[in-house]
Amino acid sequence: MTQHDDGPRPLPSRRALLRAGLAGGAVALGGPALAQLGKTNPANLPPNVADWSKMLGDGVAVRTYGKPAKFESHIGRRDVSWLTASPQSSVSFTPLHEIDGPITPNGLCFERHHAGIAELNPTDYRLMLHGLVDKPLMFTLDDIKRMPRVNRAYFCECAANSGMEWRGAQLNGCQYTHGMVHCVMYTGVPLKVLLQEAGVKPNARWLLLEGGDASAMTRSLPLQKALDDALVAYRMNGEMLYPENGYPVRMVIPGWEANMWVKWLRRIEVGDQPWHTREETSKYTDLLENGRARRFTYVMDAKSVITSPSPQAPVNHKSGFTVLSGVAWSGRGKIARVDVSLDGGRNWRTARLDGPVWDKAIARFYYEFDWNGGELLLQSRAVDETGYVQPTKDELRKVRGVNSIYHNNGIQTWLLHRNGEVENVEVS
Amino acid sequence: MTQHDDGPRPLPSRRALLRAGLAGGAVALGGPALAQLGKTNPANLPPNVADWSKMLGDGVAVRTYGKPAKFESHIGRRDVSWLTASPQSSVSFTPLHEIDGPITPNGLCFERHHAGIAELNPTDYRLMLHGLVDKPLMFTLDDIKRMPRVNRAYFCECAANSGMEWRGAQLNGCQYTHGMVHCVMYTGVPLKVLLQEAGVKPNARWLLLEGGDASAMTRSLPLQKALDDALVAYRMNGEMLYPENGYPVRMVIPGWEANMWVKWLRRIEVGDQPWHTREETSKYTDLLENGRARRFTYVMDAKSVITSPSPQAPVNHKSGFTVLSGVAWSGRGKIARVDVSLDGGRNWRTARLDGPVWDKAIARFYYEFDWNGGELLLQSRAVDETGYVQPTKDELRKVRGVNSIYHNNGIQTWLLHRNGEVENVEVS
Repeated sequence: MTQHDDGPRPLPSRRALLRAGLAGGAVALGGPALAQLGKTNPANLPPNVADWSKMLGDGVAVRTYGKPAKFESHIGRRDVSWLTASPQSSVSFTPLHEIDGPITPNGLCFERHHAGIAELNPTDYRLMLHGLVDKPLMFTLDDIKRMPRVNRAYFCECAANSGMEWRGAQLNGCQYTHGMVHCVMYTGVPLKVLLQEAGVKPNARWLLLEGGDASAMTRSLPLQKALDDALVAYRMNGEMLYPENGYPVRMVIPGWEANMWVKWLRRIEVGDQPWHTREETSKYTDLLENGRARRFTYVMDAKSVITSPSPQAPVNHKSGFTVLSGVAWSGRGKIARVDVSLDGGRNWRTARLDGPVWDKAIARFYYEFDWNGGELLLQSRAVDETGYVQPTKDELRKVRGVNSIYHNNGIQTWLLHRNGEVENVEVS
Repeated sequence: MTQHDDGPRPLPSRRALLRAGLAGGAVALGGPALAQLGKTNPANLPPNVADWSKMLGDGVAVRTYGKPAKFESHIGRRDVSWLTASPQSSVSFTPLHEIDGPITPNGLCFERHHAGIAELNPTDYRLMLHGLVDKPLMFTLDDIKRMPRVNRAYFCECAANSGMEWRGAQLNGCQYTHGMVHCVMYTGVPLKVLLQEAGVKPNARWLLLEGGDASAMTRSLPLQKALDDALVAYRMNGEMLYPENGYPVRMVIPGWEANMWVKWLRRIEVGDQPWHTREETSKYTDLLENGRARRFTYVMDAKSVITSPSPQAPVNHKSGFTVLSGVAWSGRGKIARVDVSLDGGRNWRTARLDGPVWDKAIARFYYEFDWNGGELLLQSRAVDETGYVQPTKDELRKVRGVNSIYHNNGIQTWLLHRNGEVENVEVS
């Protein structure tokens, strides 16, 4: 594979880029686009007025709850039920290549279930808080909604996101390689508030979080994290959680692996040591080359991926002005910078972060450039506010081997072909 | 009506509030909630395990695009088609009392159409840019998506929002009094970029924005605003615009009245003076007492409303810890502060702003207090970063009379009754 290096030149001005790029992008009147619309006097509307300009559309009473245009119905989560034991113990992926900005729409947030989507009745919902506390408590949903609440946007990433890539480039599309992440604005009660209300005993060190679904998902959580920034959340992007995301109540453990964000939360027990549940012994541990396993590897380290161009979002023009876009996030804080390489990591340029850059949330980046039409090896590299730099896959493999499924935050490489198609490749 | 004044005392500590309030909020084990679940050993799960804990739920393949839980199906936009000539020229309102945080979910954004929801085909979509430009341009949707883009959250408020309240308290619920506003994260191209590409002639001063629906909505926009922060937007909260919000492309005119945010945008003409269209002469002008009308009153001034408690969100407890919540926004910049009164405006306390406070966007505020169970006159008052203070309705009426439909940003009053019900009232 040829690596084209267009060198560490200064970024051209936006005006120059536009002049260069949009000659091919926007079509001047009289060009091909106009021909499609029929010959017109540029000062007036096209004579073949579209149907939608001539007839009344649906009224406001048609839908009390809106949905995307029918022309966007191809956009959706994609599942891999063929790969898993059943669709109830499976995963569906966020279409990262079909969204923009920092926020994931609620309808497109990835799913991972162990016993399907539990259908909880909000009236009968209860959350029990007990164990090493002064006063065990049982909360109704109304109780929880009545408490002081906060609004915070956080990314939620499955520890197994990009897991297939440990053994090389395998999945052709960022939806599949990186789609087990989403980022929404949560509304919830700080877990600290509930714990303060119950009164935590002096020897308390750990919590058990338990889900109400048939898998009774259980994870141990250090008390310190619970007091730091964990939320008992019931809303996402303003509305109540969707069923597949834990309706009516889920845990939000900012920056930590999604398996701990217990959905359909029914019980919190306070104890003095971890419980060593299935999900923190058999699963969600990282088997190293020497046969030992890393455990309690909670934090999702800084990571990024280019969402466009990408295998599912090829380039439709032959050359010229091109917007590269992607997402970056870190479990240790804010994204400080994202670098982009067009030559497989030999040269790096700073991308433009745009929109909110929140703590432990997805940040959106762009890099605008003048594509010469040749092959490129596209990479992005996230740097977080602690100074941590996203490693290459090979750097990760040197330390952790290739036995693991989890915690692959290595740099992703896309090969942009001359015909605009994009392929998942490895570089070394 | 009695006005209870609980005085300008200092805010109790959060811990004290919780101790005071949650005795009634969270139910200790052995109390009524536990009785509902059956008698249990507090250290274990209730023996009558809920169905959802015993059976597999739906798998991941059930829905590629998610939707709210069936238990939330009562939450939706409400229309007033009975009030208008037809459902195609009507309005539906955001259920402000049923959402939280700063962001409005896409499915719940208010609608206002003049000829129904135009169903544009993205393949045949074109945007024409012509008039006093060096190079008239015709953009396809792909052209627009290929250009440099930004992500910004802005409120969008109809100038007629709260219009019925000019003549006194009329509508019993913030969905109806204030529900013609929403706030989403837009992705779009700065209009400035398109204008730079076309090259604006020296005598250009105004733009005409035209919609592609059958009403051919047209508004004049000062060139300066277009160059300042207007966006040609195609995404909301990450995904493509919903049809009722202008799919595939709409204008975003930050801080200015929503009628100018032309949906289904098909044409931008550059000129040297305003066009004096129907929507800026017959409509969207403010008729004063002296028979003169204010025109080109674009900016939506600072405004706020308490969303809970409110007529559609009554209080379900008899007294104790209570969270008051609401939304505030200003067309002139960021919200600097929100004050809350429990006694109809005699005493004010500073509310807690929580979550992002963006420029020209909805900010969420909370005020936690210990309700003594008596009648309260609830008000909120927004202050923006320019120092502008939201006026009372009477202050507005003194200056503008009561002929107008538009630009009512007066302080809203809710009467909280002893039984927890809430009523829209006037105070003077």
